[in-house]
Amino acid sequence: MSASHPDREFDSVAALDDLRARLELSQLLTDPDVVEGYRQDWAKSPAPGMPLAVVRARSTEDVQEVMRWASTHAVPVVPRGAGSGLSGGATAVEGGIVLSTELMRDIDVDPVTRTATVQPGLYNSEVKQAAAEHGLWYPPDPSSYEICSIGGNIATNAGGLCCVKYGVTTDYVLGLTVVLADGTTVSLGGPRLKDTAGLSLTKLFVGSEGTLGIVTEIILRLIPQQPPRSTVVGVFPDVVACSEAVLAITRRIRPAMLEFMDTVTIRAVEADLRMGLDTTAGAMLLAQSDLTGPDRAAETEFMAEAFLTHGATEVFTTDDPDEGEQFTVARRAAFTSLGKIGTLLLEDVGVPLPALPRLVAGIEEISARRDVPIALVAHAGDGNTHPIIVLEDDDPERAERARLAFGEVMELAISMGGTITGEHGVGRLKAPWLPGQLGDDVMELTRRIKTAIDPQGILNPGVML
Amino acid sequence: MSASHPDREFDSVAALDDLRARLELSQLLTDPDVVEGYRQDWAKSPAPGMPLAVVRARSTEDVQEVMRWASTHAVPVVPRGAGSGLSGGATAVEGGIVLSTELMRDIDVDPVTRTATVQPGLYNSEVKQAAAEHGLWYPPDPSSYEICSIGGNIATNAGGLCCVKYGVTTDYVLGLTVVLADGTTVSLGGPRLKDTAGLSLTKLFVGSEGTLGIVTEIILRLIPQQPPRSTVVGVFPDVVACSEAVLAITRRIRPAMLEFMDTVTIRAVEADLRMGLDTTAGAMLLAQSDLTGPDRAAETEFMAEAFLTHGATEVFTTDDPDEGEQFTVARRAAFTSLGKIGTLLLEDVGVPLPALPRLVAGIEEISARRDVPIALVAHAGDGNTHPIIVLEDDDPERAERARLAFGEVMELAISMGGTITGEHGVGRLKAPWLPGQLGDDVMELTRRIKTAIDPQGILNPGVML
Repeated sequence: MSASHPDREFDSVAALDDLRARLELSQLLTDPDVVEGYRQDWAKSPAPGMPLAVVRARSTEDVQEVMRWASTHAVPVVPRGAGSGLSGGATAVEGGIVLSTELMRDIDVDPVTRTATVQPGLYNSEVKQAAAEHGLWYPPDPSSYEICSIGGNIATNAGGLCCVKYGVTTDYVLGLTVVLADGTTVSLGGPRLKDTAGLSLTKLFVGSEGTLGIVTEIILRLIPQQPPRSTVVGVFPDVVACSEAVLAITRRIRPAMLEFMDTVTIRAVEADLRMGLDTTAGAMLLAQSDLTGPDRAAETEFMAEAFLTHGATEVFTTDDPDEGEQFTVARRAAFTSLGKIGTLLLEDVGVPLPALPRLVAGIEEISARRDVPIALVAHAGDGNTHPIIVLEDDDPERAERARLAFGEVMELAISMGGTITGEHGVGRLKAPWLPGQLGDDVMELTRRIKTAIDPQGILNPGVML
Repeated sequence: MSASHPDREFDSVAALDDLRARLELSQLLTDPDVVEGYRQDWAKSPAPGMPLAVVRARSTEDVQEVMRWASTHAVPVVPRGAGSGLSGGATAVEGGIVLSTELMRDIDVDPVTRTATVQPGLYNSEVKQAAAEHGLWYPPDPSSYEICSIGGNIATNAGGLCCVKYGVTTDYVLGLTVVLADGTTVSLGGPRLKDTAGLSLTKLFVGSEGTLGIVTEIILRLIPQQPPRSTVVGVFPDVVACSEAVLAITRRIRPAMLEFMDTVTIRAVEADLRMGLDTTAGAMLLAQSDLTGPDRAAETEFMAEAFLTHGATEVFTTDDPDEGEQFTVARRAAFTSLGKIGTLLLEDVGVPLPALPRLVAGIEEISARRDVPIALVAHAGDGNTHPIIVLEDDDPERAERARLAFGEVMELAISMGGTITGEHGVGRLKAPWLPGQLGDDVMELTRRIKTAIDPQGILNPGVML
């Protein structure tokens, strides 16, 4: 019996037998030790639910079977990709099913239409690799690209470092196969570069975090490989100076990358990876150009000058892509390196670009006032920052201050016309702050759409709403 | 009394008095001669409804008043931008209101965030102009860009000639203000380059053709002005050879433009504009590169060679942007020049790129079998074609064959995994073919969302559904 099931007479043993009859034995996991590994994502919610079972789907048909079963028995289903989500979108629900797509790993690249047809379990890096074999590029590049699934990227409308020039996941999604709550499967969009027939349902499902349906196949738009990049690195006294340099750049050009790291992050990465980063730096700004010929030289020179004009104490430029990649590796390592210092509370707030200096100053103020360290990395060029609250011990009083700071950072972003999440999704972790950003009318509109598509509310309950 | 109103006791005179009390007198137009000009868009539906009145809104508040009134009285509302739509999305409904946004023409460009906040009545060309004053570019460029409104572009998710490299309207929409059926106003998205908080409602409303709400403000993403273009023009024996050249190009590179015109179109444009086009050409392919330096020369050379390899009898290349623009002007003139020959039935079918040669061959077959001339222009680089059925006289028997051919072209595209509309929208004209493309389950999903957001069905009834 599941205490949380709406039907008190619900017999979970009989229901599981029914599910077992629909699937191959190896797909249904109920061993408590195995199930334990599927209760959490990287958000590490303190109180994940205990699911009835984990199902590892192998096909769209498997997902259909699970949803037909789940809607018959009114059992909640939590879709899960690689489990690398940072906002609790894949936290298990008590008495529910965790539906993992990790075994669905097919990909087919069509170089003529420049599209890839992908199953959700493939890692982002594997999509990039398959595209590269045809001289093509799938741009979106979350820092976790080697361990995050493309299905999860669709669910959260993931971003990354390239977005400042190349956009986010939704900009590359042409079509989706989606299993709805009752097991109905719909094919949305397709390998057509332009298609405006009917409502933009493909786009609605991107970023819906598993609350409207389960994506089982994705048609991605690819673009030709871009030229190798030149890199400009600047050392700054602080993140506010960094932010001013960012605005000076975005006002004029569109670099291929524009990222910053504060001193806490630089030191954590250096301690972890020993790359020779300048640990005396107050902040570091990392920019790239992928133009060619004289344009590239002009763009890198312009950025180097903007760095110096806005307080950089040192600027380094390289046309060697491998040397540049080393700095990008350092930037991508931020979360894992900081994670070795303590427990992290990961933010993902974004603001309209002109508010960036005020946002980073405000975050420093919250850090000082609440007396909790907040490291700061940012996809600065699109105003999307990751303040990271680092807890080095188990002090419950400090943990409470961290919790308050976590909310205050989101409220600060909202007060500046910003967002509580630029690319990680709302999940369960940030759901309490969503109404503060969207307002009651948009929440009501959201609920109406959710109810129309998932009337029983069995798809990823607790996420967003 | 309106015969079509669901409530037989509906008193249209009293209802109009109520509406008049809510608005300024000059906004409510009931003079039959004036109203006549608002019953049709460019699709020229043979039997438009007779609306109760036309309202020219001046603000979001005006639109709210109209929708509060309309939902109270259960009166259908047809939103209308510039009236240049090609699929009857703005055809008046019997006993309804035509809500024109033509007076809502404010724009504010913010060069730091690289965004424009725009009201729906502004022409696309005016948005481009305002952006250009800040060295910025709004890419989407329907051929009608000088006479189509940005609100209509949002409604249809309009495309254009640049889309092969720069994407369609939805790729540039960051936020919308939308008035819902009951007059509630929601603000969706905002001037944030990354924002994944909540469902992707902004994207859902783009392309919804006025069936879910009325857009009263738009936040557009702008990009820096791109370099001037080089142009390559090729003369081909026929459109199938053209299509093969297109595939050879898209397989390798992403040009800034890749368009074709068939011989019927070339002759119509030449007869209209006297530009010196080669009227003996079976087809013409028009490509552009906006790379710089040696990359541009390499790209134009590659395209010129692809033209020759695939049967071009003549190839002309120019680095002079003005000279290149003349060919683009010719391409954009296709609809109006053909319109001077006769009545047009305008198609907008698209297919996955590899199917393009089969699609154009199939269209020629339909034209021959039904014995009706079908001119063909195409945004060839993204597989989006505009077969244009030309009727030079009023022969009802020929008109009937044209009507059959019109449907057959859409059915052909669907059979090749294509779409009935790449950029014009479904409107009322193509609504009967939408289920054939989307299937029953997607239609049902569409209906559920429509009903959840507009339960009375008063927003642009007859469009899509």
